[in-house]
Amino acid sequence: MDKAAQRQKFIGEFDNLVAELQQVARDYKMPQEAVDWLTKNLNYNTPGGKLNRGLSVIDTYCILKNKTVDSLSDAEYRKVALLGWSIELLQAYFLVADDIMDQSKTRRGQPCWYLAEGVGNIAINDSFMLEGAIYILLKKHFRQEPYYVDLLDLFHEVTFQTELGQLMDLVTADEEHVDLDKFSLQKHSFIVIFKTAYYSFYLPVALAMYMCGINSEEDLKQVRDILIPLGEYFQIQDDYLDCFGTPEQIGKIGTDIKDNKCSWVVNQALLKVNAEQRKLLDENYGKKDDESEQRVKKLFAELDIPTIYEQYENKVVGELREKIEQVDESRGLKKDVLSAFLAKIYKRSK
Amino acid sequence: MDKAAQRQKFIGEFDNLVAELQQVARDYKMPQEAVDWLTKNLNYNTPGGKLNRGLSVIDTYCILKNKTVDSLSDAEYRKVALLGWSIELLQAYFLVADDIMDQSKTRRGQPCWYLAEGVGNIAINDSFMLEGAIYILLKKHFRQEPYYVDLLDLFHEVTFQTELGQLMDLVTADEEHVDLDKFSLQKHSFIVIFKTAYYSFYLPVALAMYMCGINSEEDLKQVRDILIPLGEYFQIQDDYLDCFGTPEQIGKIGTDIKDNKCSWVVNQALLKVNAEQRKLLDENYGKKDDESEQRVKKLFAELDIPTIYEQYENKVVGELREKIEQVDESRGLKKDVLSAFLAKIYKRSK
Repeated sequence: MDKAAQRQKFIGEFDNLVAELQQVARDYKMPQEAVDWLTKNLNYNTPGGKLNRGLSVIDTYCILKNKTVDSLSDAEYRKVALLGWSIELLQAYFLVADDIMDQSKTRRGQPCWYLAEGVGNIAINDSFMLEGAIYILLKKHFRQEPYYVDLLDLFHEVTFQTELGQLMDLVTADEEHVDLDKFSLQKHSFIVIFKTAYYSFYLPVALAMYMCGINSEEDLKQVRDILIPLGEYFQIQDDYLDCFGTPEQIGKIGTDIKDNKCSWVVNQALLKVNAEQRKLLDENYGKKDDESEQRVKKLFAELDIPTIYEQYENKVVGELREKIEQVDESRGLKKDVLSAFLAKIYKRSK
Repeated sequence: MDKAAQRQKFIGEFDNLVAELQQVARDYKMPQEAVDWLTKNLNYNTPGGKLNRGLSVIDTYCILKNKTVDSLSDAEYRKVALLGWSIELLQAYFLVADDIMDQSKTRRGQPCWYLAEGVGNIAINDSFMLEGAIYILLKKHFRQEPYYVDLLDLFHEVTFQTELGQLMDLVTADEEHVDLDKFSLQKHSFIVIFKTAYYSFYLPVALAMYMCGINSEEDLKQVRDILIPLGEYFQIQDDYLDCFGTPEQIGKIGTDIKDNKCSWVVNQALLKVNAEQRKLLDENYGKKDDESEQRVKKLFAELDIPTIYEQYENKVVGELREKIEQVDESRGLKKDVLSAFLAKIYKRSK
């Protein structure tokens, strides 16, 4: 089954989950108009993205079980797909809220949910329900499993970590009060690890591991020690491409400079600037006009940020390859799980 | 120990929980400014209310164990108080968000958190963290207990129920588009049971029961069958007093009529109005001026709503007393748990 077919099969599962949640609401005798609203909330906000996180639960499960997607039984596929959709629901929970907090306009090619007709701040409760749905579904499908409580603990821990990362991001990048003294590489590292790496990289692999019975703290630590720096690298690459990638390459126009983002790029620049260059940065970073942005981009080029990025990337990819090579497979973990992630990301930067 | 002392002892426990959460953030190497923000969020939004829900976990536990608060060991008190604070955190999660959705101005005598200096929409992520804190604390203190997974399932279920109730409320009571055809007693009942009764009445008792090992589905059903109608009665009383109570009696000025609330009072009126009276309601309900409000209040009095309320109250209290009388105590449940709740509420209406 090729990538597109796998994606279609995964999307097909989502309709079943929506039907189950509708039934929960109906069993509670919830009036139809609210059931309809819940349905629209789920469908508008959960599918529609790249679904990388959800699909990587299935990929990881297949590698660990040494099976292909086609060879999974229907019941097995449904369970692992539900774990995948749980991450997508978690992401939807964060994104619906992030869009309000950032006052974003569009998401995945449509208006942000809070800007959709008649929604407004009801979107806040809708985001709550996207998270709430995770636990209703997990209970329904996993309550009898010995690892059920591990799944709950894992979701709780990663959710709290992501919220800590989001908090750090919000208190650091204030669009209205630009103050580069607030930035540092240490803060950048905290934000990207907590806001992105745990739920996007560690969570999918850990979920698949639990379902396969690979649940020792040693094995979870092995994958965490690789996937967290890998997730950090992914985000640094994202920051780099936002500034230095072409729109064709990244599929959008980067806005980190104008948005006063605590990006890896500006943090590297801050380490190298002289007094005069710092003044230029202070005066132009976070400004909404194209001229200021161009001045900042020119400075970044002068400071050789692309070379620093290249050195960073070579170093981190080398280290990750080495760590993956040393993974202990004796309890059932497979190096391939981790190399598959690295391959997807390293390729992306080319 | 009198009520005031019990309250003080309970509040004293909260500082320990804040310290534990700060330590979690510090262990993650979270920068100090974000730890400070988290601390402020917890302290601003969690204590400060009446704490009825939290305190009733302790009351219920003491009745079930046939102990006084003073006779609990420190460790025992701390555990049951943590369950109490978990409900208060859940309530804080909802209230911080509700205040944004309702565009409220004050809460518990201070500006709503989203209106506090420098907060704004960051309050959305802060509400997430209040909920997230529950599970961090439960794991720390209850992970080893055989009923740990029951606590998690219960919190998840009640959280989702409350969100369904809030959703129904939001889609029914649109302040901008007044349409009394949207109201019905059936919807009112759904809203108050789901938005209030589960987390305010059933949750505290069920938590205390789990901690006492009284966990059979029969016993949980016994308390649910009493506490859910009791919670509905509590909210109907609240709706009634909002309209017919004096400001001295209820400690605030009622605004349900001006706010177009789907209140029990207006729903009873809608059952009795003739065409002319319905026209008056359509033209005056949900309007912001005092004259419209007075016209609505006059109509409610003409329709004898106070008599209908009195009949309802007598009927429901009689039914509840009868149900409590029939409670099967053979597995350790005590009727006193339920009579204590009823006594608090029936007294309140006098």
